[in-house]
Amino acid sequence: FEAPSRQRGVAIPQGISKVKFFEVLNELRYEIGEEWVELNDKELKGGWYMEHPNTHDMMNILDAEELVASAVVYPGDVEDVQKIVGWANTWRIPLFPISMGRNFGYGGAAPRVRGSVTVDLGKRMNKILSIDPDDYTCLVEPGVSYYALYEELKKRGYDHMWIDTPDLGGGSVLGNALDRGVGYTPYGDHWSVHSGLEVVLPTGEVLRTGMGALPGSNTWQTFPYGFGPYSDGIFSQSNFGIVTKMGMALMPNPGGYESFMYTFPKEEDLAPLMEIIRPLRISNILENVAQLRHCLQTIAVRGQPRSKYFSGRGPIPEEIIHEEMKKTPLGDCTWVYYGMSYGPPHIRKYKLDVVHQEFLKIPGARRIDPSTLPADEYFWSRDKIAAGIPDLEELLWVNWMPNGSHIAFSPIAPIRGIDATKLYSLARKRHDEAGIDLMPAFCVGLREMHLIVEIVFDSSDISMRRKADRCLRDMIDDAAKLGYGEYRTHLVLMDQVAGTYNWNGNALMRFNERLKDALDPNGILAPGRCGIWPERYRGRGWEI
Amino acid sequence: FEAPSRQRGVAIPQGISKVKFFEVLNELRYEIGEEWVELNDKELKGGWYMEHPNTHDMMNILDAEELVASAVVYPGDVEDVQKIVGWANTWRIPLFPISMGRNFGYGGAAPRVRGSVTVDLGKRMNKILSIDPDDYTCLVEPGVSYYALYEELKKRGYDHMWIDTPDLGGGSVLGNALDRGVGYTPYGDHWSVHSGLEVVLPTGEVLRTGMGALPGSNTWQTFPYGFGPYSDGIFSQSNFGIVTKMGMALMPNPGGYESFMYTFPKEEDLAPLMEIIRPLRISNILENVAQLRHCLQTIAVRGQPRSKYFSGRGPIPEEIIHEEMKKTPLGDCTWVYYGMSYGPPHIRKYKLDVVHQEFLKIPGARRIDPSTLPADEYFWSRDKIAAGIPDLEELLWVNWMPNGSHIAFSPIAPIRGIDATKLYSLARKRHDEAGIDLMPAFCVGLREMHLIVEIVFDSSDISMRRKADRCLRDMIDDAAKLGYGEYRTHLVLMDQVAGTYNWNGNALMRFNERLKDALDPNGILAPGRCGIWPERYRGRGWEI
Ligand SMILES: Cc1cc2nc3c(=O)[nH]c(=O)nc-3n(C[C@H](O)[C@H](O)[C@H](O)COP(=O)(O)OP(=O)(O)OC[C@H]3O[C@@H](n4cnc5c(N)ncnc54)[C@H](O)[C@@H]3O)c2cc1C
Ligand SMILES: Cc1cc2nc3c(=O)[nH]c(=O)nc-3n(C[C@H](O)[C@H](O)[C@H](O)COP(=O)(O)OP(=O)(O)OC[C@H]3O[C@@H](n4cnc5c(N)ncnc54)[C@H](O)[C@@H]3O)c2cc1C
Repeated sequence: FEAPSRQRGVAIPQGISKVKFFEVLNELRYEIGEEWVELNDKELKGGWYMEHPNTHDMMNILDAEELVASAVVYPGDVEDVQKIVGWANTWRIPLFPISMGRNFGYGGAAPRVRGSVTVDLGKRMNKILSIDPDDYTCLVEPGVSYYALYEELKKRGYDHMWIDTPDLGGGSVLGNALDRGVGYTPYGDHWSVHSGLEVVLPTGEVLRTGMGALPGSNTWQTFPYGFGPYSDGIFSQSNFGIVTKMGMALMPNPGGYESFMYTFPKEEDLAPLMEIIRPLRISNILENVAQLRHCLQTIAVRGQPRSKYFSGRGPIPEEIIHEEMKKTPLGDCTWVYYGMSYGPPHIRKYKLDVVHQEFLKIPGARRIDPSTLPADEYFWSRDKIAAGIPDLEELLWVNWMPNGSHIAFSPIAPIRGIDATKLYSLARKRHDEAGIDLMPAFCVGLREMHLIVEIVFDSSDISMRRKADRCLRDMIDDAAKLGYGEYRTHLVLMDQVAGTYNWNGNALMRFNERLKDALDPNGILAPGRCGIWPERYRGRGWEI
Repeated sequence: FEAPSRQRGVAIPQGISKVKFFEVLNELRYEIGEEWVELNDKELKGGWYMEHPNTHDMMNILDAEELVASAVVYPGDVEDVQKIVGWANTWRIPLFPISMGRNFGYGGAAPRVRGSVTVDLGKRMNKILSIDPDDYTCLVEPGVSYYALYEELKKRGYDHMWIDTPDLGGGSVLGNALDRGVGYTPYGDHWSVHSGLEVVLPTGEVLRTGMGALPGSNTWQTFPYGFGPYSDGIFSQSNFGIVTKMGMALMPNPGGYESFMYTFPKEEDLAPLMEIIRPLRISNILENVAQLRHCLQTIAVRGQPRSKYFSGRGPIPEEIIHEEMKKTPLGDCTWVYYGMSYGPPHIRKYKLDVVHQEFLKIPGARRIDPSTLPADEYFWSRDKIAAGIPDLEELLWVNWMPNGSHIAFSPIAPIRGIDATKLYSLARKRHDEAGIDLMPAFCVGLREMHLIVEIVFDSSDISMRRKADRCLRDMIDDAAKLGYGEYRTHLVLMDQVAGTYNWNGNALMRFNERLKDALDPNGILAPGRCGIWPERYRGRGWEI
């Protein structure tokens, strides 16, 4: 990554002078400790996934100096978080909490509002507070990564429990669940398997949800709902509170597992394949959040730059893709299905036989025998992930471009041929217009699928950034017209995406604003996150 | 049921004169239609489950005239609901929405505040708006019962989809889920399988949650979360909105099923059995929300009055219970486990063999061969329910007492021997003190269990009502001291139960009140439900 030198100096929050801001930062230093407050006056450095900056999005799609923090504060405990919130209310300074800040594709560690003070929770609040080997649950702080949780289970010899990890294992278990991220075991819907939050409200009070509200409760991590309104949901994808603890279910070791891979030759196989997948997935014959990927991603994830294959303008031609595929152990194809079956051998066989029979209904479908694949084949990374073993290999497709950055288009769709086709076509059209390579992956949930289209771009290339931005915004609008909405989005697209959820005169957003104003009267917490602006910011042109 | 004659006349809402109230009721008649507004000036009749009154709790634990409605209104559509809400705001009249009002054990159809206008949504808003045979989902209005949904599936020939039903099939699919009720197939956690709500806010706006906020969305019933804060949870067990539509997942027909029953001889078997159940349940070898019942409930559910077995004072003696059990096809025992295994025969066998081997570790455990059981044995009712077939047989234990009423104590506990024992002991102690028969059923969720203790009482017997009330309140306090909290409770116990969720100076309740005041500034919607009082009511002694 190139480190562009800074033109604009320290990003001072709006409504406070630079001098005053420096002064009140000293107050914060006094409260939290000198060494735990950092002014962001250095170069905006890049990095790589595991050693990333926490002051901005190193994969910036806008100008590098747009979404930057004024300072970073590192609370050591819940009381510190309360103090920070109190301080922010006093001086009306926007805070932006992150757990580990590895939210790449969706904004990384950057705040939505330039000059926010980033609350980096993960650095010091990184304890695994409990792992319960009988209940199969854990309680974690924001700084616990999938790697850390996995290693702790191994260390304690808890082989009877699995974690669920997204494609990359370096993220925060808590932060990812709050953003409603997904992994690839049967416990892949992270939000649905969490149980219990501890939250610092924007006004400073500390709350425990679910059974955690009962002093001495013994079921905080086993029963999510508690009594009365079940409030956890409003703390996900929101700016209503800072989450300081989260409970989560761990998956029982299924007693065996086995990855499988099928390839399908033609683009048009997508639709009939989806019709086959849907009933198998709903009835749990297909058991995990599997991925159906376009073969170009299979090429990209080998880690070589695009220039190795093609140096022309516009999307890489079909012929080249298929020529390259022929050279891989998979052979030529257009779609690759990565799945896993769980349980003892005879139980797996029952399911795998059904899958095989159904998948082979697509002419030219092939099962790739894993024993024929070399150890460095990407298949083995998916094998680890579907078994809950953290990995980083997925990062390799970021190398597709120099200064490889990426940003995601992530609409939700029914698991249907017609919907897969419509989304694929609109993405294809907009990618072609922008001259961008299309690498879609359909992640099949239970009754819906998340289509994940990652645009890989060179963040030092302004014109490429603009094209990527245009392409994304067009896809979001096109999709909304057809009834598809994003499940999650990048900071810079939040206003647009939130705007598509506008049924009945924006009833949902007006409701969210009502909650925001009630919970955060001074509008200090993550203004603009998920399109929710506090009263103080509304109607002042903050939307992008 | 006896119908006590009314002493107190029509229950006029507080803060409005009787004359004025009658006047504004005419306004409501004008808005909604003459025939759809009923003054509650008749006798407070009893009824039975399927033909129950909607003006009060026919199973009253307090005086029959305590929790009664002033009037009932029947909206025909969402606009009607908005009009009713508008009217209530104008005149500051408390509303109490019910779907079908069969919430027996938890308050039936009664409002929490005497004189509320009951909004009976179910009578006219009772359409199944869609059943999707590909996605395995449905969209229902408040008045759709389990029976109605089941019959519609049969009518359409959708044998590939199952519903999940609680013990009684006459309740509302939507109302039960909103109260976070449970059923007994693998889809038994109703809240967790719902997807999408339409809500009329206390201020009258209509909102759609999840993907429903995206106009023309095609995934409202398949992807629950949508974009931004996931707000559904705060509309469950709350008084923040009136829900007019709800989506829900339907279970795929598992391709076979098989009920099984085990009996265990001794009271002390409870603890080791729970230790056996927990890992089997978490790993889905035990697949449904099964029930472990005390044998007295097995006797009671035969439908004969207690007086047939025992006419003395105090709890029915152990010896009599066991003498009676000997006469049943189950033979003598103390605990009965009702479970079901799903899938094709060889898959079931695999699971059932594990269960058998584990359960038989309890000395004297016996598997009861279903083929030895007569057709009217209660086992076959559980068999239906675990296969998603609505039933009513469970009602029979209500006959235990004349004017048979019941009220539930429903704490959540870890699935552990020690916890089962602690809860059982405290319930036993308090029942003995009150001279009440103890009939506990442990409903094992996934990582926790709902203990359901139903106290059956004669609602015409004031002293028995008082004893039941005392017993319940003591159990709630005892349980809270040990870290157990209720998952749901009766209207009259809501303040007490909410009071046990008081961590950090009642942080959760203060948060709920903040939301309540923001969403319902005039405090018109179900004041006091789940212990949440709007500003206008607080500090005025409404708690009971
Ligand atoms: C190659 C690649 C593959 C990826 N694959 C996946 C995938 O398979 N699945 C997936 O889900 N994601 C995926 N991602 C996206 C991302 O890397 C992960 O979701 C990652 O886990 C998120 O970063 P984090 O956990 O450090 O969260 P953070 O960045 O710490 O949190 C995410 C956001 O949540 C909010 N937040 C975090 N913590 C708190 C808190 N304590 N209180 C209040 N708000 C908070 C903040 O707004 C923050 O911006 C992928 C990214 C890359 C680069
Ligand atoms: C013998 C017996 C066995 C039982 N077994 C079970 C069981 O196994 N599982 C179980 O869950 N329950 C059980 N119950 C309790 C009860 O019968 C069911 O839960 C029943 O489904 C609830 O009644 P209902 O569906 O008519 O809901 P309603 O009474 O209509 O709704 C329940 C409450 O939710 C709120 N509400 C309802 N609709 C709305 C709305 N549209 N908007 C806002 N708020 C609303 C109201 O406060 C209402 O009081 C049992 C009861 C008996 C008598």
